[in-house]
Amino acid sequence: MAHIAPGRVVITLPARPEVTQQNGYVHAGASSAIADSAGGYAAFTLFPEGTSVLTVEYKINLLAPAAGDHIEAVGTVLKPGRTLTVCCLEVFATHQQQRTLIATGQQTLICVPERP
Amino acid sequence: MAHIAPGRVVITLPARPEVTQQNGYVHAGASSAIADSAGGYAAFTLFPEGTSVLTVEYKINLLAPAAGDHIEAVGTVLKPGRTLTVCCLEVFATHQQQRTLIATGQQTLICVPERP
Amino acid sequence: MAHIAPGRVVITLPARPEVTQQNGYVHAGASSAIADSAGGYAAFTLFPEGTSVLTVEYKINLLAPAAGDHIEAVGTVLKPGRTLTVCCLEVFATHQQQRTLIATGQQTLICVPERP
Amino acid sequence: MAHIAPGRVVITLPARPEVTQQNGYVHAGASSAIADSAGGYAAFTLFPEGTSVLTVEYKINLLAPAAGDHIEAVGTVLKPGRTLTVCCLEVFATHQQQRTLIATGQQTLICVPERP
Repeated sequence: MAHIAPGRVVITLPARPEVTQQNGYVHAGASSAIADSAGGYAAFTLFPEGTSVLTVEYKINLLAPAAGDHIEAVGTVLKPGRTLTVCCLEVFATHQQQRTLIATGQQTLICVPERP
Repeated sequence: MAHIAPGRVVITLPARPEVTQQNGYVHAGASSAIADSAGGYAAFTLFPEGTSVLTVEYKINLLAPAAGDHIEAVGTVLKPGRTLTVCCLEVFATHQQQRTLIATGQQTLICVPERP
Repeated sequence: MAHIAPGRVVITLPARPEVTQQNGYVHAGASSAIADSAGGYAAFTLFPEGTSVLTVEYKINLLAPAAGDHIEAVGTVLKPGRTLTVCCLEVFATHQQQRTLIATGQQTLICVPERP
Repeated sequence: MAHIAPGRVVITLPARPEVTQQNGYVHAGASSAIADSAGGYAAFTLFPEGTSVLTVEYKINLLAPAAGDHIEAVGTVLKPGRTLTVCCLEVFATHQQQRTLIATGQQTLICVPERP
């Protein structure tokens, strides 16, 4: 986790061989997974103690291949709620200092009592 | 249409009886419909001559009831493309000068040759 | 409402001038609106007394123009739940006995206490 | 890949330690990733030679935790097209012969010329 603030979380993933394809691009699955996590943690920063977060659903548009040294997912709370929270998801790839938006999404999360 | 600029369109809908429910709220269907139109026109502002726009799909979260004097949909191009364009959709309700975000979405559009 | 059963609702909309465009097609906005309603009622058939239904979000792909005598939206519960229910949405256009799938979607609904 | 037919692909993922969390459940990210792949290959089975497939976007509802011996993603083409194809995505978890739907989604794919 690269950054955490109320309602906003950034997660960075280096383009290591385990998450890259034969062409050196990060798998779309990895982009979506860190976007989902960034949104989940962003929502969680606003939840009361003793609760946990679950992803209800998300929708993501894959805009460009994940080419670069690392990818970065940003989750931002658009609308907090007692039960449901809605987040904006953005994924950027950074290649030689240049940052490109490679995916954008929207996610719904639910606040549930923490399991003992 | 209340405002039009390259990649951004605003559509306003007064809360007239034809689009309101028994409680005076604008129908969710009307909110979604003007959001879809705002995004469609926003994409269209960036298309070349002789082409037309079709909505491929959209996803919308309904955040709050559409209570107020009028609702306003804002479509903004997130990623333009030769074939596909992705837009961000926002719907606001204005009640006695106070503006509330009531829906937020994401939309994919396709540029097609104009039918003769 | 053309049909109602536990977890499944069908809504039919005749292609009247109020909902058609200059080319005689039903507005995409009208297709989405009746799809949203069909899913909402489908979920509602499974809710306990004293509760109401709200659409949290939906995603819809528009597959073909809504050409025909009438359109028909089918909402089917995929996964019922105490708080959240997920529905499948389908919209068909019927033209001279031929039925075509013109839109398909997925929707999340929430069960809330009825307002007094 | 467990099964492949025109317009339908099934991918199975055993619940190995690399894809499971501390509680033994398969990561939601892994479920989404194999759902996306299943839909992509399902679309690809219908594409002409010399083309490739890219995911434009998908939306997925996570319905239940991925508990079990293995998970299985089914991608089915709902609407094939020359440029765009729409798929239905389903993910099941199998635990001691019992199969549960744990995620359901909808996906848009694009057919592009194969890169040399």
